[in-house]
Amino acid sequence: SRTGIPEGILADGKTTAEIVALALDAVDATGHALVTRLDDETADAIDRAVGDEVPDATVDHDARARTVVVHASDYDPPTLDATVGVVTAGTSDAIPAGETAVVAGEMGATIDRVDDVGVAGIHRLFDQLDRIRESDVLVVAAGREGALPTVTAGLVDAPVIGLPVSNGYGHAGEGEAALDGMLQSCTPLSVVNIDAGFVAGAQAGLIARAIDRARTE
Amino acid sequence: SRTGIPEGILADGKTTAEIVALALDAVDATGHALVTRLDDETADAIDRAVGDEVPDATVDHDARARTVVVHASDYDPPTLDATVGVVTAGTSDAIPAGETAVVAGEMGATIDRVDDVGVAGIHRLFDQLDRIRESDVLVVAAGREGALPTVTAGLVDAPVIGLPVSNGYGHAGEGEAALDGMLQSCTPLSVVNIDAGFVAGAQAGLIARAIDRARTE
Amino acid sequence: SRTGIPEGILADGKTTAEIVALALDAVDATGHALVTRLDDETADAIDRAVGDEVPDATVDHDARARTVVVHASDYDPPTLDATVGVVTAGTSDAIPAGETAVVAGEMGATIDRVDDVGVAGIHRLFDQLDRIRESDVLVVAAGREGALPTVTAGLVDAPVIGLPVSNGYGHAGEGEAALDGMLQSCTPLSVVNIDAGFVAGAQAGLIARAIDRARTE
Amino acid sequence: SRTGIPEGILADGKTTAEIVALALDAVDATGHALVTRLDDETADAIDRAVGDEVPDATVDHDARARTVVVHASDYDPPTLDATVGVVTAGTSDAIPAGETAVVAGEMGATIDRVDDVGVAGIHRLFDQLDRIRESDVLVVAAGREGALPTVTAGLVDAPVIGLPVSNGYGHAGEGEAALDGMLQSCTPLSVVNIDAGFVAGAQAGLIARAIDRARTE
Amino acid sequence: SRTGIPEGILADGKTTAEIVALALDAVDATGHALVTRLDDETADAIDRAVGDEVPDATVDHDARARTVVVHASDYDPPTLDATVGVVTAGTSDAIPAGETAVVAGEMGATIDRVDDVGVAGIHRLFDQLDRIRESDVLVVAAGREGALPTVTAGLVDAPVIGLPVSNGYGHAGEGEAALDGMLQSCTPLSVVNIDAGFVAGAQAGLIARAIDRARTE
Amino acid sequence: SRTGIPEGILADGKTTAEIVALALDAVDATGHALVTRLDDETADAIDRAVGDEVPDATVDHDARARTVVVHASDYDPPTLDATVGVVTAGTSDAIPAGETAVVAGEMGATIDRVDDVGVAGIHRLFDQLDRIRESDVLVVAAGREGALPTVTAGLVDAPVIGLPVSNGYGHAGEGEAALDGMLQSCTPLSVVNIDAGFVAGAQAGLIARAIDRARTE
Amino acid sequence: SRTGIPEGILADGKTTAEIVALALDAVDATGHALVTRLDDETADAIDRAVGDEVPDATVDHDARARTVVVHASDYDPPTLDATVGVVTAGTSDAIPAGETAVVAGEMGATIDRVDDVGVAGIHRLFDQLDRIRESDVLVVAAGREGALPTVTAGLVDAPVIGLPVSNGYGHAGEGEAALDGMLQSCTPLSVVNIDAGFVAGAQAGLIARAIDRARTE
Amino acid sequence: SRTGIPEGILADGKTTAEIVALALDAVDATGHALVTRLDDETADAIDRAVGDEVPDATVDHDARARTVVVHASDYDPPTLDATVGVVTAGTSDAIPAGETAVVAGEMGATIDRVDDVGVAGIHRLFDQLDRIRESDVLVVAAGREGALPTVTAGLVDAPVIGLPVSNGYGHAGEGEAALDGMLQSCTPLSVVNIDAGFVAGAQAGLIARAIDRARTE
Ligand SMILES: Nc1ncnc2c1ncn2[C@@H]1O[C@H](COP(=O)(O)O)[C@@H](O)[C@H]1O
Ligand SMILES: Nc1ncnc2c1ncn2[C@@H]1O[C@H](COP(=O)(O)O)[C@@H](O)[C@H]1O
Ligand SMILES: Nc1ncnc2c1ncn2[C@@H]1O[C@H](COP(=O)(O)O)[C@@H](O)[C@H]1O
Ligand SMILES: Nc1ncnc2c1ncn2[C@@H]1O[C@H](COP(=O)(O)O)[C@@H](O)[C@H]1O
Ligand SMILES: [Mg+2]
Ligand SMILES: [Mg+2]
Ligand SMILES: [Mg+2]
Ligand SMILES: [Mg+2]
Ligand SMILES: [Mg+2]
Ligand SMILES: [Mg+2]
Ligand SMILES: [Mg+2]
Ligand SMILES: [Mg+2]
Repeated sequence: SRTGIPEGILADGKTTAEIVALALDAVDATGHALVTRLDDETADAIDRAVGDEVPDATVDHDARARTVVVHASDYDPPTLDATVGVVTAGTSDAIPAGETAVVAGEMGATIDRVDDVGVAGIHRLFDQLDRIRESDVLVVAAGREGALPTVTAGLVDAPVIGLPVSNGYGHAGEGEAALDGMLQSCTPLSVVNIDAGFVAGAQAGLIARAIDRARTE
Repeated sequence: SRTGIPEGILADGKTTAEIVALALDAVDATGHALVTRLDDETADAIDRAVGDEVPDATVDHDARARTVVVHASDYDPPTLDATVGVVTAGTSDAIPAGETAVVAGEMGATIDRVDDVGVAGIHRLFDQLDRIRESDVLVVAAGREGALPTVTAGLVDAPVIGLPVSNGYGHAGEGEAALDGMLQSCTPLSVVNIDAGFVAGAQAGLIARAIDRARTE
Repeated sequence: SRTGIPEGILADGKTTAEIVALALDAVDATGHALVTRLDDETADAIDRAVGDEVPDATVDHDARARTVVVHASDYDPPTLDATVGVVTAGTSDAIPAGETAVVAGEMGATIDRVDDVGVAGIHRLFDQLDRIRESDVLVVAAGREGALPTVTAGLVDAPVIGLPVSNGYGHAGEGEAALDGMLQSCTPLSVVNIDAGFVAGAQAGLIARAIDRARTE
Repeated sequence: SRTGIPEGILADGKTTAEIVALALDAVDATGHALVTRLDDETADAIDRAVGDEVPDATVDHDARARTVVVHASDYDPPTLDATVGVVTAGTSDAIPAGETAVVAGEMGATIDRVDDVGVAGIHRLFDQLDRIRESDVLVVAAGREGALPTVTAGLVDAPVIGLPVSNGYGHAGEGEAALDGMLQSCTPLSVVNIDAGFVAGAQAGLIARAIDRARTE
Repeated sequence: SRTGIPEGILADGKTTAEIVALALDAVDATGHALVTRLDDETADAIDRAVGDEVPDATVDHDARARTVVVHASDYDPPTLDATVGVVTAGTSDAIPAGETAVVAGEMGATIDRVDDVGVAGIHRLFDQLDRIRESDVLVVAAGREGALPTVTAGLVDAPVIGLPVSNGYGHAGEGEAALDGMLQSCTPLSVVNIDAGFVAGAQAGLIARAIDRARTE
Repeated sequence: SRTGIPEGILADGKTTAEIVALALDAVDATGHALVTRLDDETADAIDRAVGDEVPDATVDHDARARTVVVHASDYDPPTLDATVGVVTAGTSDAIPAGETAVVAGEMGATIDRVDDVGVAGIHRLFDQLDRIRESDVLVVAAGREGALPTVTAGLVDAPVIGLPVSNGYGHAGEGEAALDGMLQSCTPLSVVNIDAGFVAGAQAGLIARAIDRARTE
Repeated sequence: SRTGIPEGILADGKTTAEIVALALDAVDATGHALVTRLDDETADAIDRAVGDEVPDATVDHDARARTVVVHASDYDPPTLDATVGVVTAGTSDAIPAGETAVVAGEMGATIDRVDDVGVAGIHRLFDQLDRIRESDVLVVAAGREGALPTVTAGLVDAPVIGLPVSNGYGHAGEGEAALDGMLQSCTPLSVVNIDAGFVAGAQAGLIARAIDRARTE
Repeated sequence: SRTGIPEGILADGKTTAEIVALALDAVDATGHALVTRLDDETADAIDRAVGDEVPDATVDHDARARTVVVHASDYDPPTLDATVGVVTAGTSDAIPAGETAVVAGEMGATIDRVDDVGVAGIHRLFDQLDRIRESDVLVVAAGREGALPTVTAGLVDAPVIGLPVSNGYGHAGEGEAALDGMLQSCTPLSVVNIDAGFVAGAQAGLIARAIDRARTE
């Protein structure tokens, strides 16, 4: 497509048969397929079906991110001269942050994952700061009170996209407090919806593309 | 009273005449009076009325906190061997943080104010950390995304009471994002309602009293 | 840790294998482990795994509170010279109140449980008042309209932490009415999020520590 | 009317001229008029207009309740052999509780007002309990956390109607916490909307009428 | 109890064993038991257990209302000289309306059920109006937009208690629109929470008791 | 325009000078102008300005609806062979219902206003039913609980558009209960936003146009 | 019925036996039956039961729309000289859009389905515009941000009914953003509740009937 | 500052004297000042004060955007080789869009404003599409249903930041529907809070800086 954003297949609410068919169709039409929010059984089913139908294709299953990527043998993935940093506060951010990484990665960006630097122990963030400052654009995921993007954006020059994650319970749980806090952040940043790792990855990928175009002009 | 929490007179929604009368009554009955959320005109009116009726009493007006405290000449204020730290993120936290300081101060605690250490420039918080660590109990005020109590509670041993402040605009503005974030904080703390500086001061004062009693047993 | 707050393992949303592994790791690293919101099967699995791997350790399972505590044989638990009172309105408060008790207990506080003193039959509260007044700090749990912390705080000198519980159905059910009422309480108190028994226990434990330090200075 | 509920004129959002005209019309058509939520100037305007147009009529202005009642000289008000108790938690409940009293009073009930028995100082409620138990039906008004109807209903036999009042600030302020708590009350009661003193009075009046009919059968 | 409101056992969220034990305890202590929101299997289990333990007792299972009532052979149920009308809009109101009927019935009131008179076909309401007007107090249940209590209260003299029911889907579904509409009703009535048939029955029972007392004075 | 919906000028939040200029521009460009939500002073200012600038034009001011319509002398208004019924529950519905009438009227429909047929006294609706049944399409306005469109749609064949009105106070006030109830209506109807009389008039006008086209084919 | 709106049987929350019985009753009483939101097993059960009891009847199962329509052999379905266009943004709109089509179709309208013209690739909408403009009334379904009805209504003359669909996740998911956007649409349209395809179909059918009557007058 | 984001002075809620002092301080400390959300009188006061105190400085007042920018004579503003497109749906977007333009402009970006291309008349957007496609990053402002960023992002390659604007009335008014729709957008984009033109400008400016750095590497 013009923007380079891959067509994603959201597994939630679809049957295994539907997902497999959609993935094979995508590989057939575009040379690659990206499935999100699937379970291990569906990943295996895709693996088997691809093995049967397009045996040369590669199948990459990231079980923690709950994603599968299929590349036909003749698919020539894009590469961008730009890095997207994907920063997480804790282990419960793995699924949406993984979606972000896989989408921006499919768009061609170099991905730099920095995990478990939540604000409860802020020294961990400072320990990784030099590395975080090397990315061209950052997606920062956080659940509960969602303070990490705010703190990070105060320490770096790159644009920060806040990715609220649906953990937390009780009042304003399920990511609402995190979203609210990012919208009210006292350091400027833009945000995507709760758990919208795909959208964050696409937006970071679009920024990486713009930087890549500028670098290669 | 048994708990030492002063009876406050909330000026909002009362006429100047009513407030003046309530303040004089309080001085008469208890030797002191505490008025919150008043404007300068009402403070002046109290000053004049006290000057007329109980000329020996002292009148303390804190214009930024919008509070007035009156002490009769024979009023013997309590003193506690315990310090309440009152920490703010920015200038817009002045009114509720001032209420906290005046209430806990009237209960006898030593008050230590640390202002403008918001997380947008986190080095300012680190510069004050040694001092902040010396308080026995902390009230940390913050508006917008309200991340300061979360970050502070990760750096100190003392109990932290989060005080959300009604600034911010748009979605989850007027302190809602700050309250939500404090309730979801990834470091343990307890909270009071938005702008409830009076309540935070009373609760910090009760903790200071318990510590004072333990120290003087 | 500096604050003495134990690292808790929240069982909700984790597999039994993950929980067992995390518990064994915690015992290995810190000499103790605390698991919350687990079911009986998971408790049994931890019991068996600890029996296999660290046979000298003790395993305490509180089925009503849905918690497990593991102590290595050489673990030396802290003790504080301070009492945390844990007061409940009814039987449906057992899980979060149990979390509070176990967390504050692990921090070293003496725990005094007072159960079933809800405001529907207020004489039961009065019958226990002398005892309730002996605690240094109180966590008061209540669901539905959540009036118990408000009524209790009007009768005692100690600081009260309100713990709203997610029962009730219909409008403002699932603990929202209880949280709202505690935030609006006409007697001063601080609160934690709905069902956040862990947070209430940690905050009460921090206050108990401050009192213990003052007593032993 | 069949139910005996007076047609009320809600002054909010109407001009003085409109209110005066509606009141004169009501007196003309039904022999009496009831205006709620008016200010002192409008009350004076009604007084003057009635003085000019129906000089024999009586005009009762309750400034605290912000109501005016007009009775033509030949108006024969109903009387019921039943008492409606109107109980308030604090001074800020005066307006809706006053509406309740005036509406039930116009329907013929004997009104017994018991004021300032809020749960922050629960002994005041116990001091008035014998008297409260003498009413046939109770309207209990309360703002902030709204616990008073719950506590009262646990102590009396009569049906209790909860009347939430729009005070309180911050989250769930403006009466929402009070309404939520009454809907979730752990003692059975029915409720009306926030500040709906008129409705509470009409409902209490209907119950009083049913009791009066039963007494006089 | 003083108020005559039976202690109800809410089956939701309890195991069959717990429910059976609570029911047997209640029969033992008070001569009767009332269980709400149970399924057919639990009803059968109670039936068997009562058959074993208190063979003379009667067990009444209302499958549509999902209630069971147990009376010991020597239990002497109260009777009141007063009628509670229970009116429903549609079949989906059966559970909460059934709870209302069973609670008020256990308190001794005569129950008059009028079903399926929803406002979508308003002539059905008019067809039953003479009968509806004979009740001393009415509980009117309705889901979706919840207009039936409003329309009914405009046609009768008796006090009406609105009982919102959790049907409807989409925005303001699950009974919220019905509750909101009853709180805003343009004819005076009082309400209980969504699906709170128990509360509505208790409140109607208290009014019926007051009328009965007046009739028998 | 293609749809015949007039371009409306919403006076709220604009200065008198801006409104007058926009109205004159509209008359100049299209031969007519429609201003909504203006006050009497602005209406007078338009009247004077039109008198000065386009002296032959007519100015129609509906003070209750708060609208002004200007027609240039050579403006040829459309006429449709179709009737839009505009039904209101009470006097507080006058502004949005007036907007509906003026918009559908400018589109050429015959307007039939039926006022004050609220469900609190349902006989008034029945008295007007034959007349209401003669309209081709109905806009039914109601505030508070908003039951009138539901009841009306059960009695007529024509499509009903529900128009919720922002009256009512307390919980779900300002039209929210009315909107919620219309969305949950147990008789089929479509709705517009709270106070969106303009939108209801435009939609009714589009339906009237379709009927007119069918009649004149 | 007078309005021609079929009585629908909403399968959600009913047992298969209940649904089958209701469907047979409907065929018996009215010659046809319409069941919505059923699964394949229930559809098969209806098919078998109709085969047994009314063997001449036809059974139409639309698996994507999750509807079944039964026509007795002597049922004479209405036909209208009017077309209802049913437009969808994506595949997840299939269920409510299918309900709309089947309800309006049963009322006699000609149905024109235009699928997958969502605003993410707006050229697809333009490709179908001539066809869309031929319908007499349009129901436009959309989930997520729900922009399609707004864009469509700006391009056509016919009245547009917006049908919000419950997809989307995170904040304002489950159709709330779509409903909100349609209520705030900058082009006039009316709306129904989230997923209320039945209601949209009935309202479109009523408009089609009015147009048919006008055409055939 | 490191990020180049200017320190803004938000005039809302500050006195003219405070704003003037803050502006003069900023010019003194950093060579420039940026004030947002001020009225004309405050702009004049700044103009006069700057004229008195720093007569060589330039003062730029944008009355529609309600911003003032002051540059000292020796202030050397940054310039970036990158263009930020600022696109609005209608005139009510002027204030936040103006804030965006002034902030990104002060950061050095070239600003390209494209106004009044709302989706109600979508041809206006197509007319400007070639120009819109030339920007490196786009901020798209829209109120009411907020569909413009969604439609735009489907037509361009550059990253789009959605800026919801607080117009609209009734349910989900004041920008909530627009924010919700942008968070749910079926084309990927990131968003800022309602009316947060300052934040959108800062984020667009950070992206422009990254592109500029890449171009000039
Ligand atoms: N700023 C404040 N916030 C919360 N409570 C307050 C405040 N100021 C005074 N109070 C308390 O609120 C109560 C005043 O209630 P009132 O009768 O409405 O004046 C007293 O218990 C005061 O101690
Ligand atoms: N304070 C009040 N709260 C609720 N309803 C009221 C109040 N005062 C008058 N009413 C009733 O509200 C209706 C007045 O409606 P309106 O036509 O808007 O004046 C009448 O039925 C009155 O009896
Ligand atoms: N999918 C649906 N959405 C909304 N209403 C429906 C639906 N299916 C059936 N109905 C209508 O809802 C009512 C069914 O009510 P019930 O008695 O709960 O089955 C009838 O008036 C049906 O015509
Ligand atoms: N219109 C605005 N919206 C959001 N933030 C702003 C705006 N104007 C200024 N700011 C920023 O908000 C902060 C102002 O905080 P203060 O004036 O201290 O409340 C500064 O960081 C400004 O850069
Ligand atoms: Mg930064
Ligand atoms: Mg700490
Ligand atoms: Mg106390
Ligand atoms: Mg009672
Ligand atoms: Mg009535
Ligand atoms: Mg109809
Ligand atoms: Mg159109
Ligand atoms: Mg794009």
